[in-house]
This record gives sequence, structure tokens and C-alpha cells, in this order.
Amino acid sequence: MRQSAIAQIEYELRDTEDIISTDDEDLKMHGFAEWSSVRVDTLPIAVAYPRNTEQVSTIARICHERKVPIIPYSGGSSLEGHTAAPFGGISMDFVYMNQIIKINEDDMDVVVQPSVQWVDLNAQLKSMGTGLFFPMDPAPSAKIGGMISTNCSGTNAVHYGTMRDWVINLTVVLADGTVIKTRKRPRKSSAGYNLNGLFVGSEGTLGIVTEATLKLAVLPENYSVAVVPFNTIHDAVSAATKVIRRGVPVAALELMDETQMRIVNEGGVTRPRVWQEKPTLFFKFSGSKLMLEEAIQNVKQITEAYGSQGFEFARDEREQTLLWSARKESLYSLLALRKEGEEMWNTDVAVPLSHLADIIVTSKQDAAALGLNACVKGHVGDGNFHENITYDGTSPEEYEKAKKAVKNMVQRAIDMEGTCTGEHGIGFGKKEALQQEVGNATISFMSVDK
Amino acid sequence: MRQSAIAQIEYELRDTEDIISTDDEDLKMHGFAEWSSVRVDTLPIAVAYPRNTEQVSTIARICHERKVPIIPYSGGSSLEGHTAAPFGGISMDFVYMNQIIKINEDDMDVVVQPSVQWVDLNAQLKSMGTGLFFPMDPAPSAKIGGMISTNCSGTNAVHYGTMRDWVINLTVVLADGTVIKTRKRPRKSSAGYNLNGLFVGSEGTLGIVTEATLKLAVLPENYSVAVVPFNTIHDAVSAATKVIRRGVPVAALELMDETQMRIVNEGGVTRPRVWQEKPTLFFKFSGSKLMLEEAIQNVKQITEAYGSQGFEFARDEREQTLLWSARKESLYSLLALRKEGEEMWNTDVAVPLSHLADIIVTSKQDAAALGLNACVKGHVGDGNFHENITYDGTSPEEYEKAKKAVKNMVQRAIDMEGTCTGEHGIGFGKKEALQQEVGNATISFMSVDK
Repeated sequence: MRQSAIAQIEYELRDTEDIISTDDEDLKMHGFAEWSSVRVDTLPIAVAYPRNTEQVSTIARICHERKVPIIPYSGGSSLEGHTAAPFGGISMDFVYMNQIIKINEDDMDVVVQPSVQWVDLNAQLKSMGTGLFFPMDPAPSAKIGGMISTNCSGTNAVHYGTMRDWVINLTVVLADGTVIKTRKRPRKSSAGYNLNGLFVGSEGTLGIVTEATLKLAVLPENYSVAVVPFNTIHDAVSAATKVIRRGVPVAALELMDETQMRIVNEGGVTRPRVWQEKPTLFFKFSGSKLMLEEAIQNVKQITEAYGSQGFEFARDEREQTLLWSARKESLYSLLALRKEGEEMWNTDVAVPLSHLADIIVTSKQDAAALGLNACVKGHVGDGNFHENITYDGTSPEEYEKAKKAVKNMVQRAIDMEGTCTGEHGIGFGKKEALQQEVGNATISFMSVDK
Repeated sequence: MRQSAIAQIEYELRDTEDIISTDDEDLKMHGFAEWSSVRVDTLPIAVAYPRNTEQVSTIARICHERKVPIIPYSGGSSLEGHTAAPFGGISMDFVYMNQIIKINEDDMDVVVQPSVQWVDLNAQLKSMGTGLFFPMDPAPSAKIGGMISTNCSGTNAVHYGTMRDWVINLTVVLADGTVIKTRKRPRKSSAGYNLNGLFVGSEGTLGIVTEATLKLAVLPENYSVAVVPFNTIHDAVSAATKVIRRGVPVAALELMDETQMRIVNEGGVTRPRVWQEKPTLFFKFSGSKLMLEEAIQNVKQITEAYGSQGFEFARDEREQTLLWSARKESLYSLLALRKEGEEMWNTDVAVPLSHLADIIVTSKQDAAALGLNACVKGHVGDGNFHENITYDGTSPEEYEKAKKAVKNMVQRAIDMEGTCTGEHGIGFGKKEALQQEVGNATISFMSVDK
């Protein structure tokens, strides 16, 4: 009798304890996320817990033979249903593959497993006194596997680029269990197809990443954080784009709207400090003291020309950290401040810089006209921003309104020559939007099944 | 009767004059290059001169139906036989598709056709006073099509990355004539597979690029160029890697060995100035005056610790340009200074930073032991360097020696976890090396024909 995939995996990997779980709670934890824009009724049939590349290969081979889907799972914080299991299948959790395998200080690179959390990697690099760090900064809960999968970025992208710029090589298990390594360890190469760039952002559809060598950057000597409120979103965004256009060196450039600033105040993480509840730019500066002073001076001048309503610095390192983490944790603050029964829809788009102010203002108006609570924040230096919509989850009408607001915003981004997602990825939530964005011929070229 | 591809192209595109050339000189100019490492006995059977994407599509469809190879041709300056026609076929020269279609100043991007020369693009951006530039700088003769095809870089890569970091979207004609566009115009996106990253560096094997939108960078306010000689290659490379490891902001960091410095002196472009004929680092600094001063101070300190034999600046903008162009044009100087009958083999590899000094020194020794004249220069900030070997082209033994020196160096790079090419690409010259570098499983994944 043909054995089930689960039985076969358990049999072939019988020397490893708890290689498969079918515990209900475990299935739910892996197949469902309250922050996801996608809700499906199904769950994975099992969760696999491989310990190394060879075991991943074995599981892939067995699932391939039996046509059982695999859903790779690391941090689980993706927003567009990347970890959902609409066709059942096996969720593959890398929690046991969480080692920093090797830090090559002189080569400024690091070899890691997929379940390393980027914040832990940076803590480790700091505690070792390497003077190096990994500059991508998506949600603090994100892990390397998922960060590769979605081509993550975060607040540092305006200076350091996105995940695909930081991958030196990947070890990948293909659908049938074949193991390949994309490259050896050169920081730069023109040899053969850029498989790193192909797997980064492919959301687990082309293979499962089991190991990665990542570039590291030199930790700047100093940081400074400035907070600059404006009367209107338009002023704030215009000032931000001018800073970029002038080439003033900023390490990060974030926008938070008046609603988001209120939430920072309500959350209270920066108490006793209270911020003006206006559209606000957050600037991070990094480098030598001289560089910081000069950049700050330039930014001050530009923002004043756009009617800035103040220019305040974080007073010390503690306040810098608090302030930046208020930005970083803002999604969680929003989730925590929801009322009973409220749901949240988080989405992102990106557009050419010259359209950014317009799309933000129009999208906020649109949400307001639909009677929704929406707040906006974004990586304005990249033309990329997020809208978080809170709605009454018990009302199908409210859900439809939220859906409409998102759909309108995505359409607007595409009409402005932008993209339906700057960093969250497609998942199951934006499949239609992708088709709309790139068209049938391009989708057909992307198609694996042809 | 089934028509030939040439006749069919001439018929379908009969409204366009000179769409096809079969002139002998033309065929030779397209199929042969004296600077190429690859010599084949065949030439293309024709050269096609399309005027737009639609015509490229028509030609591709006709060639696809008749299984006639197409070899896209733009600057023709690639080194590994990229434009050679070992299977005959049609060379497709984009010389008529040389327009800068649109400069979007506010979005900091530009839409171009494949035959735009990067130096012309920068001249245009300068004359318009945009304050923007395109920072990739391969050989001055290179054009956008080939730059995309090989994932080019050049001396600015240590600061600005490589070609794949600068592509926003591509219009590509696939083998069967289908036209796709990879994206709209966002500077950042996580929507779908990263087709930009796949086509960049694919050397015309996946499709023909007929239009590209490229990011532009803000032109730095000031530049400075410093020349720092050392007693040994080892000292020079160690100093260079320390500069990178400390995070001192340099716009470029180039090494030229004693032979290459002699050639600069002999070439005489920087007369009356004469340089020490020692292993020498060239630093380019860019940014505000303050940033320059600080970076120069730091570099001075670091290079002194490695026994630098001086620290000279280009005295003015003219000297800066001359000096940098001496570096940029060094291949042409070498070609011009060859004796009757001499040939040159130009190759490049890249390794992790910590191996760079060793591989350069060993490769120079190896070439010397084989009785060859070899000089080395490189983008040391990226672990990438070039060896130019001059040999007697009339002697098969000398050719074999040069081949051996290159093969040894490539093997050494691979053994040190590096790559067989940092920026020149594979072409026909490094197909075996690629197989050796990434192994059969990875090659098989790359294979289009499976």
C-alpha cells in the first residue's frame, strides 16, 4: 500500500525525534495569522521540523513524489498569507535550523541558517565586537528565511538597499529534493545566471532556502535621530523627496502620519516625551560626527523651506532607540490598541518619487470617505509606504470597505507606474494585483508550470 | 519553398532600408574582436539593424521558426567572446536604437535604448544640468545593452554596486518574439520574480533587451583623487582591505601594479607628471568638502601604517580626469603599446577580501614563472581584479602558456571560494570555468533546455 507522506517522512527520518507534528494548536499556529490580509478555512495537515539540509531534501523528495505542497515557515510575520495553507500540505518550520554557522570578519560576511532572527544576528555581531552589522530591518520578529523569501527591506533600505543586495550565496532545496548552491563566496560576480536574485523574493515557489551567506556592513560610528513635524502630508513628503534629490546622506527617512503619531503617544514608549500629532518625518543619520552635523544642517534647511513645525533630536542613545523602536513596533502598537472585534489590514505599495505625496493624500481621503480608520507610514525615501486600516471584523460590510480601500490604493499605485508591493510580497493576497501590474505576457514568462 | 531567414526578414521589414547587411567587413567587425579571449573561425551570416522593439520581435520570431541563432550586439567591447558567432547566425546590432527616450529628473530615472553609450548618457545629464549621473563605469566604449547583459560594474562598484542594482525595468524580446516588460517604474518592489535580476547578467541567452529604465544617482558636489604607492602588492592590498573594513567612505579604490604604472608613464597622458613605478592604490573620494577631508585623513593614516611611499593628489580637475582616465583607458594603452605580433589576454576573477593579496601575488609569480608579461589592476574594494597577459601571438607555445596562466588563476580563485569572473561575464571563454565553479546541479538548474 502506498504510504502517506507523513508516514514516509516519519519512517525515513525515524532517528530524529518530533520530525512531524500534527497537533491541532501547532497546525493553527502555522496556518493562521491574525495580522494576515488572507484568511483561509484550511490548515496544513502537518508541521515538519527538519534539522538540516539533508532532512529538508528528504522531506521535499517525499512530498514531490506524492504531490503534497510544502509551505516553508520561519518568522511567520509575513502579511499577505505567505504561510497560509489553502491546499493543505506540510508547513516546514525551520525553528531547529537557527544557527549562525560562521562569521567571516575579514571578508565581512556571515553564514546562517534560515531561522536566525536578524535582531539576534546583530546582537551577536555586537557582543563579539566585530564592528559589523546586517542592515536589513523588517519587522523585529522576521527571520532570515522569510526575509530572503520576500526580498524584505525596512527603514534602512534608502541607504542600504533591499535583501537581494546582501545575499552572497544560497543553499536551496528544489522541489524534487535536489540541493544546489548558487555560488561560492565572492562579494561580486558576473558568472552565470544571478540565481541569488531569482530565489530572493520568490516566496518559496522555486525552492527552499536552507543556508545563506550574507554580506555585512561596517557599523557607523555615530547615529542621530531627528523628528520633524509638518502641517500637511504634502509638505512632509515634498521635503523628504527634496532631501533625497539633493543627495543629502541619510541612513533612513520615514514618514508617520498624524494618526500614527497619536498612537506613538498613546502607546507611551517614549514617555515622558510627547510628540506633536502631525505628519512627521523621522530622519536617521549615521557616520562620523562631522558628517552627521553637516547632513543635519542640510536637512534642517530643506525641511524649513517646506514649513517644518520644529526639529527635535532624540536626546541620547536611549531616546534614539526608543523612538526608532516606536517606529519599528508601530504595527504591534496598532494591533494592541484595537478594540474588541476590530481587525486590521496592512498593505504596502511603492511609486515613483514624484507621485508619492499624491498617492498618500488621495489614499487617506479615500479611506476617510469610506468611513475607515486608516493610518499611513512609509519608507518615503524609496517611494514605498504602508497603509494600516482598522475595521469592524464582525461586519461583512466593513470588511468589504477595507478591501475596497486596499484595492483602490493598489490600482492607484499601478496607474502611477508603481508596484502593488514594495516589500511585503505577493503571497496569496496580491496575486490578482501582480497580474494587473505586469500583464499576461510577463506572468506567463514567470510561470513555472508551462 | 521555405524562405531563408534573411529573405523573410527582408521581406517582412521591406519598408526599412538596410535592415540586413551581409557585407564581409560588416560580418568581420561583428564576429571578431582582437581584444577577445575567444577566437572562432566562423562569422555571423548577416547583421540585422532593427530600429525598434517591434522589428526586434519580428526578427526573433523568424529566427526562432528557422532555428537561426541571434547574437545581440551593442558596444562590442566584451572580452570573453560574447559577440562571437561559433554557430553562425545573425548578429543584431542596435546602433539605430541609441536614443535617450526620457529623463525623469524628479524620479531620478532615465529610459534608454540599448545602444546608448554610458559616457554619452552622462554627458547629456551633465549638459542638461540635472545634477544626476549614471554611476556604472565599465570600458568607455560600453553601451547599455551589453552592460545589462554582462552585469557590468567598473571602478565605482565599491560605492555604487553593479548594473543589477540600477535597473528599474526592462523591455525584453524573448526567443520566439514575445515582448515582455519586467515592471513598471517603482525604485523598489517585491512583486513577483525579480526578472530584472534574472535578465541582467544573462548575456543574451534569455532574451534581447530593447529598452531599459535605469536609476540615476545624485552627482557628488566634489571629487578628489589620491595616488598612493607601496613597496609591495601585499602592502597595497592589505591597506585597501583595511580601508574597506573600517568603513571609510571611498567612491572608488583601484590597484595598479608596477607594470601598469610604467605603462601609464609610457603612455604619457598625465605628462609632465611621472609616477613611481610601484604597486599603487588610486582612491577616489566624493561628497562635501568636509567629508572629503575627513576620508582623506583616515585613508592617509591607514595607508601609512602599511608603509605607503607617498600620498599625492591630483592637483586640479584636469589632472583628476587625466589620472582616472589613465586608469580607465589602461586596457587600450596596453593594446596600443603591444609590439608587432603580440596578443593580449584579459581576464578577471573575484575572491573574498581576505584572499585578495595572496591570489594577486601568486598569480603574478605564476605568470612570471611561465615567462609571461602580465600586469595586474583591480577593483580591490570588491575583491575583483584583472590580469592582462601579453604573449607572442605567432607562437602556439606562448598561447598555451597564456592559457595556462589564466586557467591557473581561475582555479585559484575558485579554490579560495571566489568566482571565475567578477564583471566580464562568461561568454564562450569561461563556460568550463562556470561549470567548475558552481557544479553540475546548479548548472542543470540554470539550463534553459531541460
